[in-house]
Amino acid sequence: MIEWKNLNELASFDAAAACPKVDLKAAMTGEEGAERVRKMQAPMAAGLTYVYAAKAVDDGIVDALASFAKEAQLLEKYAALYNGEVINTGEKRRVLHQLTRGQLGECVIADGVDKRAFYTGEQEKIRAFAKKVHDGEIVNEAGEKFTTAVQIGIGGSDLGPRAMYLALENWAKETGNFRMEAKFISNVDPDDAAAVLAGTDVAHAIFILVSKSGTTLETLTNESFVKDALVKAGLDPAKHMIAVTSETSPLAKSADYLAAFFMDDYIGGRYSSTSAVGGAVLSLAFGPDVFDQFLAGAAEADSAAKEPDIRKNAAMLDAMIGVYERNVLGYPATAVLPYSQALSRFPAHLQQLDMESNGKSVNRFGEPVSYPTGPVIFGEPGTNGQHSFYQLLHQGTDITPLQFVGFRKSQCGVDVDIQGSTSQQKLLANVAAQIVAFACGKEDENRNKYFEGGRPSSIIVGDRLTPETLGALLAHFENKVMFQGFAWNLNSFDQEGVQLGKVLAKRVLAHDTDGALYEMSSLLGI
Amino acid sequence: MIEWKNLNELASFDAAAACPKVDLKAAMTGEEGAERVRKMQAPMAAGLTYVYAAKAVDDGIVDALASFAKEAQLLEKYAALYNGEVINTGEKRRVLHQLTRGQLGECVIADGVDKRAFYTGEQEKIRAFAKKVHDGEIVNEAGEKFTTAVQIGIGGSDLGPRAMYLALENWAKETGNFRMEAKFISNVDPDDAAAVLAGTDVAHAIFILVSKSGTTLETLTNESFVKDALVKAGLDPAKHMIAVTSETSPLAKSADYLAAFFMDDYIGGRYSSTSAVGGAVLSLAFGPDVFDQFLAGAAEADSAAKEPDIRKNAAMLDAMIGVYERNVLGYPATAVLPYSQALSRFPAHLQQLDMESNGKSVNRFGEPVSYPTGPVIFGEPGTNGQHSFYQLLHQGTDITPLQFVGFRKSQCGVDVDIQGSTSQQKLLANVAAQIVAFACGKEDENRNKYFEGGRPSSIIVGDRLTPETLGALLAHFENKVMFQGFAWNLNSFDQEGVQLGKVLAKRVLAHDTDGALYEMSSLLGI
Repeated sequence: MIEWKNLNELASFDAAAACPKVDLKAAMTGEEGAERVRKMQAPMAAGLTYVYAAKAVDDGIVDALASFAKEAQLLEKYAALYNGEVINTGEKRRVLHQLTRGQLGECVIADGVDKRAFYTGEQEKIRAFAKKVHDGEIVNEAGEKFTTAVQIGIGGSDLGPRAMYLALENWAKETGNFRMEAKFISNVDPDDAAAVLAGTDVAHAIFILVSKSGTTLETLTNESFVKDALVKAGLDPAKHMIAVTSETSPLAKSADYLAAFFMDDYIGGRYSSTSAVGGAVLSLAFGPDVFDQFLAGAAEADSAAKEPDIRKNAAMLDAMIGVYERNVLGYPATAVLPYSQALSRFPAHLQQLDMESNGKSVNRFGEPVSYPTGPVIFGEPGTNGQHSFYQLLHQGTDITPLQFVGFRKSQCGVDVDIQGSTSQQKLLANVAAQIVAFACGKEDENRNKYFEGGRPSSIIVGDRLTPETLGALLAHFENKVMFQGFAWNLNSFDQEGVQLGKVLAKRVLAHDTDGALYEMSSLLGI
Repeated sequence: MIEWKNLNELASFDAAAACPKVDLKAAMTGEEGAERVRKMQAPMAAGLTYVYAAKAVDDGIVDALASFAKEAQLLEKYAALYNGEVINTGEKRRVLHQLTRGQLGECVIADGVDKRAFYTGEQEKIRAFAKKVHDGEIVNEAGEKFTTAVQIGIGGSDLGPRAMYLALENWAKETGNFRMEAKFISNVDPDDAAAVLAGTDVAHAIFILVSKSGTTLETLTNESFVKDALVKAGLDPAKHMIAVTSETSPLAKSADYLAAFFMDDYIGGRYSSTSAVGGAVLSLAFGPDVFDQFLAGAAEADSAAKEPDIRKNAAMLDAMIGVYERNVLGYPATAVLPYSQALSRFPAHLQQLDMESNGKSVNRFGEPVSYPTGPVIFGEPGTNGQHSFYQLLHQGTDITPLQFVGFRKSQCGVDVDIQGSTSQQKLLANVAAQIVAFACGKEDENRNKYFEGGRPSSIIVGDRLTPETLGALLAHFENKVMFQGFAWNLNSFDQEGVQLGKVLAKRVLAHDTDGALYEMSSLLGI
């Protein structure tokens, strides 16, 4: 029997908070530090490893976090979710993104449909469509092959798919899996669409309109923008556009599109990269087999998140350490730092995933909570970040926990040997060095060159960034955020906080304003 | 006589902290809110306006902040800086980036050289060089024009110039000022250089190697990477590369480069966009006249920062409100939210500028400070961010102050009218709406749809993003960060916090490690 309780109602959380604190600097020094790195590893899907040696936890705290996870019924709640219960209480919806990549538990029948079959069916439709595009069976009006896919979407229809595309673009080129370039239009700022279109051969472009509701202001506006450009180029928009939407949306059965692929209300935008939202563009860009590999990695991570032993369940462990850092140690932000240029936009995706899911002040019953919930998430790839904001991370007055990611091998395989090491070795030497520098610091009589240390980090280590490891990485963080939402007793699957701005913007456009809103609109010349 | 005092030694700061707090929600409601928007505006350079109506301040607090700014001697310290005193106490250096764009005070003679003349002289050299490239006097080995400029640099040699290039790329195309495409290679991750080179016609590319010291690991590694690619393409690297460096660096007089342009130790990387570091790539991309306009905007902002009346000195006012938010209201982070796709990487530049300058725990004398200093800075362009992390900003448990930027007109001038409004109008309606939504919130019996409000923001409003307004925007933030550093009594111009990681990375590459560093390196396969 699942009980949904607030964090402060769980005795095991108080027990975790009462554990003696770890002196991270001392713990990571000498042989004890070496032993921590060897032992404090949790296996992940697709051969990844979560290393938490440089987190301010020890066996006692991990045991306490395990009890906390148990009392919070994280696994029972996860099972309820993947078995189709209405976990999204605000919008009264099931939460089924895991079904897009596997059958974790019972069959979920909703609205008379087997949802797993529905999602795989849509992916099969996409597979067939992509194959026809690649084989030249679906072509432009001049009978020529399409060479570019342009996704029109915002938020979850943009950030996740874009981050995934960038993550695999060079891998695909290197491995012969690159089929079509993909581009993205998201912002309602007309300069976004104008710039993308100016750099696109529209006659050979297929546009993917992505909006679950079919009513997203930015996306519909940009659709018109694109249609204008197509018409001006003497082309028929209906021969250049496909839709990814819900079956009930106004876009679903329109003759305006070559094809429509469906998702549904049980898949939140920020959890939609493994649905048709990511499937269409990634299958066109890299082929449906690559997308299948990506799904397989995510499915493996979903299965790994069912593991009861917290030391073998990286998503749960990562989640509980994050709650410990937020609610016991009091850290307000977390930095995501992939040492991989291919993951340049992965932090932006995680920023949405985490902050939109858990940036909330009421619990799943709409009651205010009395404790901090989701942190601010930010990040850039390393080593770039080292030459930017790491100064504050090392020597600033606040402590920011860090999430590193690193892969032993590069994607492209091209490298140079300078001063006895390759670029890849330099990259990895830097991330290893940073972890120890943050944890251990450095004494110096000159306080300006003194490093306090005690700054916690974890790292996810893999062999190479591939479709499988990317899928595993994506699902790891989705499951981490889900577990944290359970621990905080939040509904991580709605986003009421985005509504007010939309309502007020409509009033501005209708010239139905007064007070500060009227003056601010006037100042901006609207 | 300048006295360098810690924040907690200034009585006027305590007075500001003791002012009655503003109920922002009440203040921004009704006619009072309208009046605040009309009145709480400070003029900026290049026709920009800083609007602080939605900040949690009132006349009493602004008066107190004015006294605080006076007691902290912000203007005297600024004058000392631009007149050439050794403000960078850690590295014992002058701080002269303002001289790259104007003569604010006395002539600064350093090392026997008039530094203003030195910086303008380098810009004249760049002007002549760029003109020859554009006119086809400097060409590749086949006698053909160069079409692409590729900047190789990291940190300040990358983030600022890249953000400025992206900010002006579409404007330049629209106004006939686009001369050459620019690309950027920064990360030591070999996949960065490999991907950029794979998309570049190297035979027609000119590479700009940017490193003040001439010893930056990432940059030298990427230089080798590029040289390899040029040699493999049968080209002579010396005919394709220029250097931007200091006169004393190993790169300065090398026959490996077509030309070398100089900066010096008085210009920190994160303040170098208006020096040769930004000058070479921007002059090649858009022509030296455009770069001059950019410098003119920055110079105008520098002059505006000399204004004694805080209500007419936007940089000072912005800075003091930021200190008030950090040290009185206790907010740990600030979000930068430009409603302009062209400013997509401007937040990443500000992240470095702010966090590397003021993310410090010791004062300018190397003594620990007892108060919080620089906040975490993050951001993405609007409206994209609205569909991502704004959920947390509106309804999260922590309050994050917001810095909006908006322009009345788009850059490209292409637009569509949908549902009675253009994309540009929708963009602006959204930013106006957000400011009021964050400040005023919304009552709702359903607590999940309830917005607490009281979340402070400011907005910088301009007519259009042009070289002048971009320069003014850049310098505004440089001066804001400088004033905040003075208020916190920091040295905002060194970055000792980046050193430890470099030292440890070298030890990893030399296989001179033990303990946790050895184990972490092994795990990563180094």
